Amino acid sequence: MIFKKIGIIGGGQLGKMMISEGKKLGLFFAILDPVTDCPCSSMVDRHIVGDFYDRDKIRSLAEETDVITYEFEHIDADILMELEEEGHTIYPSPGTLKMIQDKFQQKSFLQSQGIPVSAFQRVKSVQDLQKSTLQYGFPLLLKSCRGGYDGKGNYVIKNAEEVSTAYDALGGSASELMVEAFVPFVKEVSVIAARGIKGEIKVYPLGENIHENNILKTTIIPARVSKEVEEKAKALAMETMEVLKGVGIFCIEMFVDKNNHLLVNEIAPRPHNSGHYTIEACSTSQFAQHIRAILGLPLGETALLKPAVMINLLGEKGYEGRAKLVGTEKALGLPKVYVHFYGKSVTAPERKMGHITILDNNLPLALKKAERVKDMVKVIS
Amino acid sequence: MIFKKIGIIGGGQLGKMMISEGKKLGLFFAILDPVTDCPCSSMVDRHIVGDFYDRDKIRSLAEETDVITYEFEHIDADILMELEEEGHTIYPSPGTLKMIQDKFQQKSFLQSQGIPVSAFQRVKSVQDLQKSTLQYGFPLLLKSCRGGYDGKGNYVIKNAEEVSTAYDALGGSASELMVEAFVPFVKEVSVIAARGIKGEIKVYPLGENIHENNILKTTIIPARVSKEVEEKAKALAMETMEVLKGVGIFCIEMFVDKNNHLLVNEIAPRPHNSGHYTIEACSTSQFAQHIRAILGLPLGETALLKPAVMINLLGEKGYEGRAKLVGTEKALGLPKVYVHFYGKSVTAPERKMGHITILDNNLPLALKKAERVKDMVKVIS
Repeated sequence: MIFKKIGIIGGGQLGKMMISEGKKLGLFFAILDPVTDCPCSSMVDRHIVGDFYDRDKIRSLAEETDVITYEFEHIDADILMELEEEGHTIYPSPGTLKMIQDKFQQKSFLQSQGIPVSAFQRVKSVQDLQKSTLQYGFPLLLKSCRGGYDGKGNYVIKNAEEVSTAYDALGGSASELMVEAFVPFVKEVSVIAARGIKGEIKVYPLGENIHENNILKTTIIPARVSKEVEEKAKALAMETMEVLKGVGIFCIEMFVDKNNHLLVNEIAPRPHNSGHYTIEACSTSQFAQHIRAILGLPLGETALLKPAVMINLLGEKGYEGRAKLVGTEKALGLPKVYVHFYGKSVTAPERKMGHITILDNNLPLALKKAERVKDMVKVIS
Repeated sequence: MIFKKIGIIGGGQLGKMMISEGKKLGLFFAILDPVTDCPCSSMVDRHIVGDFYDRDKIRSLAEETDVITYEFEHIDADILMELEEEGHTIYPSPGTLKMIQDKFQQKSFLQSQGIPVSAFQRVKSVQDLQKSTLQYGFPLLLKSCRGGYDGKGNYVIKNAEEVSTAYDALGGSASELMVEAFVPFVKEVSVIAARGIKGEIKVYPLGENIHENNILKTTIIPARVSKEVEEKAKALAMETMEVLKGVGIFCIEMFVDKNNHLLVNEIAPRPHNSGHYTIEACSTSQFAQHIRAILGLPLGETALLKPAVMINLLGEKGYEGRAKLVGTEKALGLPKVYVHFYGKSVTAPERKMGHITILDNNLPLALKKAERVKDMVKVIS
């Protein structure tokens, strides 16, 4: 069982952290990634250099390994469905992936299963979009149904003048677009959830996410919400996993509104940035858990060992080129500060270059220490 | 600072666990090891395939990296001393390594510095050895001064009839040999200690080691000794690090006798099997600490987070060939059980193939769980 070969589509930091856990168990890893010096490249047994939509390369990866997984969802789901039909093992299931890839389908499915989501509809023309503004008011969120991440493919329309600009910005009638009613949330939270091959589900503690420019900056665990909200969110995450029938780690992002109602925002069928804290703050990291799930091993404990704050190390604005991490010496002088640097050779403004997890005996102490660390460590060039 | 390239002489499991920690910081690693599929091979940026005594290859490793370290002490110390003189950075220092490599020199040095060690002397002939038996009585330990590990190069002489057999078994007059008075110990313990470039020292909790056939089977942390003995052992370890002026992680093995006196047995100038528990049971593992030390980064915390038991996964007797790990599924079903499998393709009786760390809220619970795990997991072929 333990000697299976795992193929990962994508060679970024999520893959790297997955490999790091899997190597402890002596597992073999192959990746598919177009970038020869991607973060996984120096830790992997086999690197197939190729595009995420290269059907031949995906097929090679499947043929060389026992289980296929992915660390990135914008990949060719159709070929994965074909491979699954031919008998290859792929987790999470390509069918679930295909549905999640299309945000309109994702939301429609969740809604059909009774999972609360914000109001949404497809828009096929600028006229459709104008109608939606009347129905939902401003601000209004225009989204590409496919391919968006870190705010790419999203447009917040603040007023009527922006309607056609937004429509054109996201590709206009050449793109599949949808609108979502803006949710006046008080918190953005996420649950990392794991589901095993036999359907067993385990969820991690609720994380509170702070985004800037649509990019995750900070996750605070446990989220600063009432016990009741935390329990509701975990139950909602479990229900979502149940309806998705996903195998592996999923991230379920939610909004909490001022009445403490929860709405599922987006689902990622893979380990997630907001779950990085699990490496040091839980017995089983999200990456170890993903491997357990897809290999049919028992799921591990998910309890929080210590309150944690995760801060992303984004490339500083104004710096582009060969990456340089400064301030680490100082940060490592503080107790329970864990620096992760992904090994991307080139930095760019707001590029995810690494993260730091900060633990302490209580959350106020962890937050205070995180503020100090944030001022110390920078990625420049 | 953080972008330094680290060269490791040796590509075994200790190197692998070191690389695993260093990769979190985005560091580059090169290794020198004669075995193409050694445990490090699939995680390393550069593998120089060559013998530990190949001076040209060691020189190449030094030229390609910023800091040289080693995970195995039976290497060519002279070339390292040359390279150090030429300006290469090597930690722990080749001078310390050379002294430690020769057990007679090691003991003589420790004794000269006031560190308590058992009685010992050089033997250059079978007559010398016979004289020693009169002086020290039986049992008596005959040791090769160089190159021994896991009991290889050691011979316990139980009676006068065994004297010449033992002498011949260890190579006779062709070898450098020494004898050590047998210590009637009640416990074998070890301290993992780190010393930084500026001389700061941190020690880990005292571990209690259980050997069988001279091979480490189990480490129990904290050691089941009085608080007083633990404190004395840590102080002795700090004193030893001070006199050695070593930079990096060292393991200081000691005997505790029935009067609670401590004697230093052996020193390893590298991370040690008895310190593997630090990966999950401490904030900073011995491997992360070693990297911090040799890069001049601040040393991390060494406190024990939870009582731990480490059991070695040795190749089962009667099995030789392609390694197979059985029972992992069951073991991973228990909470706080961490399986490490080094990825050596071939097993042999008593070969170190992996280890499992078991944590719990108190030591009796951890010991009980470890007994169950030991019965579950086996390395066969």
